[in-house]
Order: sequence, then structure tokens, then C-alpha cells
Amino acid sequence: MLSKNTRKKILELHNKKKRVENNAFIVEGIKGVNEFLNSDIELINLYHTEDFDTKTTEKHILVTQGELQQISNLKNPNKVLGVFEIPKKKQISTKGITLVLDQINDPGNLGTIIRLCDWFGIEQMICSENTVDCYNSKVIQSTMGSLTRVNIVYDDIFQYLKNTDKPVYATVLGGSNIHKTSFEKNINIVIGNEANGISAEVLELVNKKITIPSYSKHNKTESLNVAVATSIVIAHIKGLEG
Amino acid sequence: MLSKNTRKKILELHNKKKRVENNAFIVEGIKGVNEFLNSDIELINLYHTEDFDTKTTEKHILVTQGELQQISNLKNPNKVLGVFEIPKKKQISTKGITLVLDQINDPGNLGTIIRLCDWFGIEQMICSENTVDCYNSKVIQSTMGSLTRVNIVYDDIFQYLKNTDKPVYATVLGGSNIHKTSFEKNINIVIGNEANGISAEVLELVNKKITIPSYSKHNKTESLNVAVATSIVIAHIKGLEG
Repeated sequence: MLSKNTRKKILELHNKKKRVENNAFIVEGIKGVNEFLNSDIELINLYHTEDFDTKTTEKHILVTQGELQQISNLKNPNKVLGVFEIPKKKQISTKGITLVLDQINDPGNLGTIIRLCDWFGIEQMICSENTVDCYNSKVIQSTMGSLTRVNIVYDDIFQYLKNTDKPVYATVLGGSNIHKTSFEKNINIVIGNEANGISAEVLELVNKKITIPSYSKHNKTESLNVAVATSIVIAHIKGLEG
Repeated sequence: MLSKNTRKKILELHNKKKRVENNAFIVEGIKGVNEFLNSDIELINLYHTEDFDTKTTEKHILVTQGELQQISNLKNPNKVLGVFEIPKKKQISTKGITLVLDQINDPGNLGTIIRLCDWFGIEQMICSENTVDCYNSKVIQSTMGSLTRVNIVYDDIFQYLKNTDKPVYATVLGGSNIHKTSFEKNINIVIGNEANGISAEVLELVNKKITIPSYSKHNKTESLNVAVATSIVIAHIKGLEG
């Protein structure tokens, strides 16, 4: 049985501030939990119902469906909830593509971007401190296990970009046509906020402004969704690499 | 004041069956409503609060915030709700790219795909009859005004693909590398369901199977989100056109 105190401790982790304080986050559902169990990320505790297939260790705690419901963020929790340790900041390598996110707010967008980094072998991402937390449950839900394979660091991106040796690309309106641009092998790509794009101070550090051209006859066409634009840029650059 | 009967008639339009019966759909919010007002799509009635800037005609009906709340699907309705006529089926042109959707279920994905068709000047889309309704409020919300600029037809896609003169491309696992494939100018591109991909009978009508290669070192990488994959394919083909 879960004590009131344990319940409280777990529930707190649905909140970002408490995740940081406790250096822990929650993963829910069989598929997600198994991906994290098979990764380098450290398990703190696993709360599971009787029908979840697992060996029993002291970290694995059997709960009833009602108890699982009490600690879950989901309407219909699926057999298991894992509490994992937030991994230590890894050094950012200077090789390859580094994606730099400037205040991405929507968890679905961040999740999609992490998933496509995983697909395209982009192993590192630097997020501005005001970007949505990658240990937010909605991000975890939408990344599937990709979060275990991409090194994500929250940092002062202005300072990072000021000191980087790699050229800084960004997608903006009125930049050069992406299809007519050549790309170095080791670069940074900055992705801006959903509504406001790249912040003014960060934009000043961008060396190469690129644009995905529109082929619409209408001048009212909405801009592309940020995750869509990111995927087009990355797929294009990776395609050029061959 | 809104009569009980009017309220009921509007509320019914949040339901697909009733939209089809009444040949009408709802658009909410200032930006969306204005885009539809400025399009070819016929307005049936506009329900707006006093602070919505509009000329008064007999189609424009002044309501209180409370009344707007009663007919809205949103937590915080924003000044206006428009009821518009579902446009007549337009002929599908055989020119250019036709996107064919095979059971896309998620309204957000359909909305994103419509928006990117608008961006890339793809003017027509054929959806299988079991694809989510493009007049669903979540689709309307996420397409912004793009829905007014893309011709969307719900039809038997198996029959359509059987009779089309254009080659049929589809993104599948294990197809030829998209970056090493050449594309004709007039083609169909089939997009499959989020979980199950393209249905077996439709897959038999595909002439050219293509794949967005993964660059991941891990073999567990999740497949790309369907809207992301669609955008990569379309951006790539449009980029080749120059």
C-alpha cells in the first residue's frame, strides 16, 4: 500500500519545480516505461499493478489500479508508472548538428522535435531556459523513448551561441532559399518560438538566415508549424549529406 | 436573444453527422472567422458579442458573452462564432500533386497537413471516408484559414487510385531513398494512418514506394509523426522543382 507521503511525493513530480528539486521525473505506460528501463537512465521506483510483467526488486512496488489512478496524470493509467532520475548534464559535443531551441512552449512541438532528432541521428539539443521542460508528462508521452537517446541541455542559449565555433543557422522569413544554400557539416540550427519566432538578441548571433520557400499563390498562407519547419530543414540537410 | 431552438441547432453542428445533414460547420474566434468571411465560403450566420467589429446585416446576430459561451466549443470563446456552408465538391484537377489521405485520425495531424498543403501550393487533397472530418472544430482551429484555400474531397480513395492516370507514390518502410528518387510533375502521394500506415488494398495500387531514411545509430527509433513525414516529402519534391 502506498503511504500518503509517498503519494504526495509522486504527485509533486507532475510539477516542474518539484522535478528540479527532487531531480526526478515520471514516465507512464508500458511502452514508455520499458524504453526508459532499457536505457542508461536510472530508475528510482516503479509502481505497477499485478498484471505488469516484471521481476520483483525492492525498487518495484506493487499497487492496486486505484492507487495507480491516484498517482497518475492520465485518465486511464496503463499498468505502470516509473519514477526516474533526471540524467546529469552531458558535455555538448561540437561535432555535427546542434539544435538550439529558443523558447518552444508547446509540449507536443518539443516532443515531435525530440522524436525527429532521434530519427535523424541528431544527438544534442540546447534549450533556452524558458523552453517547456522536456520532463513534462506531455513531452514524455509524445517522444516515446526518443528522450533516452537525445542529449538535452537547458542553458543560456545566448551565451552558448556567443561562444560557439560552429556557424549559426536559423529559419526566418526572407532568408536565403534552403534549397539553394550549402551547409557545413558542423552547425547550429536555431528554432524560434511558435508565435514570436527567434528573440531579437539571439537573432543577432545568427550568421546564416534561411527560409523554406512557400509555393502558395495566396499571400495569406499561415507560416508552417515550428516542428514541421524543423523537420523540413533537418531532413534537407541530412539528405544533402547523403 | 437566442431561442432555445437556435441554440440547439448550432450545438448540433459540433457533431459530424449533423454537419453533413445540415451542410454547415462552425468557425470560432476572430482570426479564423475573418479568414472565412474573406473567402468564397458562404456565411450562414454570425453570432458575435458587442465588441466584435462588424457591420450589422441580417446574418449577423448580436449575442451576450453568456450566450456565446452556450453555443461555443471553447472554454473561452473569443467574441464570435460563425456558421458557414460546407462548400460543394469541386472537381479534382489532374495537374500537380494530389495528396491522398488513408484514414488520418488525429485532427491536429489533419490540420497540420492542410496548413502545409497551403504553404506548398498543393491545392487538392482526397481523404478516405474514414479520415477525420476537416470541418471538425479542432481541425478548423489548427488550420487557421488554410482550409479555405485547399480543395478537400472525401471519397473512395481505392476507386480514385484505381482510375487515376498519375503515378501513385507512398511513404513506407523499406522503400527507395527519397533523396535518390526522381519525381514526375503530376503525381499522387498517399499518406497512411498514424498507427497502421497504408491499408493493404490501397498499398497494392502504389507504384512507387519511398522512404525517408533514418540516420539514427539506434534501431529503436520511433517512426516519424505522419504530419512531419508528409511535410518532409512535400518540401523535398517542391525543392526539386526549384
